Formats: sequence, C-alpha cells, structure tokens
Amino acid sequence: MAPQDDSVFQAYVDALIRDDPPRVWSFIVTIFGDLAQAPGSQISGSVLTRITELAGIKPEAMRVAIHRLRKDGWIDSRKYGRTSTYSLTEYGRTLSAEASPRIYGAAAETPALWHLLIAGNSQDSADKLLELQALSGSYIELGGNTVLGPGPLPDNTAGFFALQGTSLSVPDWLRSQICPPELGTACHQLYTALTQITAHLSDTPANSKLEAATLRALIVHSWRRVVLRHPALPDFFFPPGWPGNKCRSLVQQLLEELPRPDMDLLEQEGQTSIMPPADVTMKD
Amino acid sequence: MAPQDDSVFQAYVDALIRDDPPRVWSFIVTIFGDLAQAPGSQISGSVLTRITELAGIKPEAMRVAIHRLRKDGWIDSRKYGRTSTYSLTEYGRTLSAEASPRIYGAAAETPALWHLLIAGNSQDSADKLLELQALSGSYIELGGNTVLGPGPLPDNTAGFFALQGTSLSVPDWLRSQICPPELGTACHQLYTALTQITAHLSDTPANSKLEAATLRALIVHSWRRVVLRHPALPDFFFPPGWPGNKCRSLVQQLLEELPRPDMDLLEQEGQTSIMPPADVTMKD
Repeated sequence: MAPQDDSVFQAYVDALIRDDPPRVWSFIVTIFGDLAQAPGSQISGSVLTRITELAGIKPEAMRVAIHRLRKDGWIDSRKYGRTSTYSLTEYGRTLSAEASPRIYGAAAETPALWHLLIAGNSQDSADKLLELQALSGSYIELGGNTVLGPGPLPDNTAGFFALQGTSLSVPDWLRSQICPPELGTACHQLYTALTQITAHLSDTPANSKLEAATLRALIVHSWRRVVLRHPALPDFFFPPGWPGNKCRSLVQQLLEELPRPDMDLLEQEGQTSIMPPADVTMKD
Repeated sequence: MAPQDDSVFQAYVDALIRDDPPRVWSFIVTIFGDLAQAPGSQISGSVLTRITELAGIKPEAMRVAIHRLRKDGWIDSRKYGRTSTYSLTEYGRTLSAEASPRIYGAAAETPALWHLLIAGNSQDSADKLLELQALSGSYIELGGNTVLGPGPLPDNTAGFFALQGTSLSVPDWLRSQICPPELGTACHQLYTALTQITAHLSDTPANSKLEAATLRALIVHSWRRVVLRHPALPDFFFPPGWPGNKCRSLVQQLLEELPRPDMDLLEQEGQTSIMPPADVTMKD
C-alpha cells in the first residue's frame, strides 16, 4: 500500500468528473451531507476551500456558491476571529437527511403492492396530484395526470381514479422515460470510473484526509446525480444492462475504503497548509 | 284485462319516444335483433312497414333506411312475387348477437380483478390500444392512451404499461365521463316511461301482435341506446341514483309481458290489413 502520487489522485478526480465538473452549489450540498449532516456539525471555510480546490473548483466560484447557499437558507455561517465556519440550517439538514437513504442505503426492494392515481382534467385535481408527488417523491409519471407509486393506496384518493395492484408490466417507453439515454450514459460512465478507482485504491490510497474527503464527496456527488434522477425502483423499470445497482455496490465499497474522516483531524489538516503534502510534491 | 284503445298504445309509444324519435336505420336493426336474429329468420316488407309506422316512422323514411342497411351489408332482401322479405346478413347477425347479452342479459357483476393499460406516445402503441379496445368493447377510457378493463391482464401487453389490481376508487369526474348529463337524463326519462308502461300494461295489454312487436322494439331500442353507451360496469361507476339497473329490471319484466310474437302469426297480421284492427277503429 504505497501512498499515491499526485497524478493518481488527479486520475481519480478526472475519472469521476470527466468533462462535466459538478455544479459548485450542488457539490457543496453533497460535502455537507457527507461530512456535517449531524446537528452541531460544522466545516471551516479553509477545509471547504481545500476540498473544492482539490475537486477542480476555483475559490471564487466556491465563494459565490456559499453566498447563494446562505441566501437560499441551506447553510449558516459564523465567524471566529479570521475564520468562518459553516453549518447546515435546519432546512438544509432536513432535505439532506431525506436524500441520504437513497444515496447511502440499500437498493429498492420490489414492493408487494403498487398503486396508480389519475387526476381528472380539473386544475384542482391535477394540483392535488402534483402536491402528493412532491410530498412523497416516490411517484413516477406515466403521462399526463397519471402517477404510479409503491405500496397501498393512500388514505385520501378523493378526486383521483385509483387502482391498487400487484402485477405490473413495464414497457420499453417507460424504461426510456425513467432512464433517458443521457442518464444511461452517465450511469455507465460512473460505473467505469468506480471500477477503475476500486481497482487501484487499495494499492494507492488517498494521501491525506482532505483528499479522502474530496474523493468521498466526488463519489457521493456523482452517484447522487444518477440515483436521485428517478424514484427508488426495482431493476425491471430500467433498460436491460442498467448498472445502477452495480454502481451502488461499488459506491458503498469505496466509501468503506475511504472512511468519513474525523472532523477535528480534517480541520487540523485544513489549517496547516494550502499546498499538497510535502512528501508528494517532493516526488515530482 | 281490457284491450287498450288506440290512445293507450299511442301513450306507450309517446312515453318511449318523447321528443326524440329513434333513428330509423338503428331502429330497424333493433327490430331484426329482437324478432329475426336466428339464422334463416326473415321479416316481410309489410310487417316492417307496419311496425315502423306504428312507431311513428314514415314509409318513405323506412325505405331509405332499408336501402342503406342493404348497402352497408347489414341486411339481405329477397322477392317472392310482389312481396319482399328481409333478413340479417352474416355480418349483421354477428354484430346483433354481440350486443344481445348487454341488452337482454343480467347486470354486470363486479369483477374480482381489473387491469389498466397505458399506451406510450408512439403511434404504434396508441393504435394497438385502440384495436384492443375495439375488439373487446369492455374498456373504458381514463384519458389519453389509458384504458381500464375487467379481468386479468391480457396475454400480450407488450408496448403497454400494465397494472393488474383488485381495489379501485372511482372519482366523480370519471362517473360524469361514463355517464354525461344527457345520458343521465335519458336514463331517468326511460325509467319514468318504463314505470308508466309497467303500471298500465297488465290492465291494457297490446291489441295485436304488431303492436306488441312495436312496443318490444321501442322498449329494447330505448334501453339499447342507454346501455350500449358505456361498457358493462358495476353501479359504483355511475353517478349516485343512476337508474340503469332499475331500467334493466323493468325492461326484462316488460319483455316477459310482451312475449316475442310467433313470426308466422305476425306475418299473417301484417298481410291482412295495413289499417289498425277493426275493433279499435270502430271504437273511435
């Protein structure tokens, strides 16, 4: 287990980012969700700067994103002397906690029951369906005013046509709607990247807690962009060969190999230097 | 049980027709379906003329309709000297036999299973759904490209999203779609007419086989126009108070009180006179 040189870390980053760098705002949400989701948990400005820089994001872009996240009520900031620290607001923490089971948890089991709701042509009924969809997050659209969800009929189906059933058959057009070509490509590319990193990480682990935190965040972020694009659904809703659940296994394996760093040690590393560790730079 | 006078028969006819005389073409189809559906069965031109005249249809309108029914392949004609006789073609007999169970049979039982099919946006899939709908006649539309049918999923659901279920909930908008206001009104009016005729028929029965055949045809025709406007469905698909099944019971009761006349005796009556029976005209 030799420590990696800089180019290995960069190769990991490149494999995950490809030509499509993460949106900074969204990447910072991922970092907070991964490192500081617990109440009272916070991240200093220096650590955030280091992690985002390691992920190829310019400090200026990070500052803009932080500003927007504060404005949108996702994060709070505090000043201790010259140091700013940031933490999720109650709102940010709630949204983050809602997404976590989908990102970090096991694959969806096939529900024993399904239900289908159809809103009529009235605006009232259509609005009610949208509201229900937004609240649950587990519905998929089957065309105008029709949604399918797992489990039994909800209590109040007034205004909807509702059918509860056990057997269903998923056509190709629905598979393509749930997983359009660009999402299929993204998932296959993520699978390739995760396979490459898995093959090398045990031989060339991260050099520092900051690099480990950055890799974790990039892995979680890339996976999050795939897995949150559709509700939790069994494999037969996806085109044949869909590597979603293989990605999930590799993500879980990699996150075990790159355990969540102790925040105090991460902060120490973040304060000591904004340059890469000396043993790596000397190798160049 | 006094024989009715002419005004009683006319009151029966008026109650059934109201301000909405039957379309002649369609009424003749009803007559054939009721009196001459069996292979080899035929009706003479004179009997058809007498029945349609008793129903308030002009001979000229009947001739036009007969011409159209022959042209459309519903009926065949034969000449015996000066007399023409008409019979259903194989095609007409098939369509007539398909509709009979819905018209003369028992009310729909609530199926233990339902299935719902959704065609995608492709023309292919939508066409396949229309074809399936046309073949089965038991589907109801739930908005664009979506149908609900009784029973288990059909064998071939390729191209459709399909859900098979047991519990369903029917909203008001679907009830209004299955039974729009004008159909509700027609059904309530038919119920009123059938109730009135039921109240009087045992005291003042039909004077002749021709009148009985005419009343049968008008009753069946009015009912057919209500019952074939939607697939066979349990009561909970209809607005509260829908008298569909009450109409069905009265229709069945009235058809027992006005049994299908023997065709030979009906033909004898049809050939003897084109005037109303003497005992009735003398009363005036």
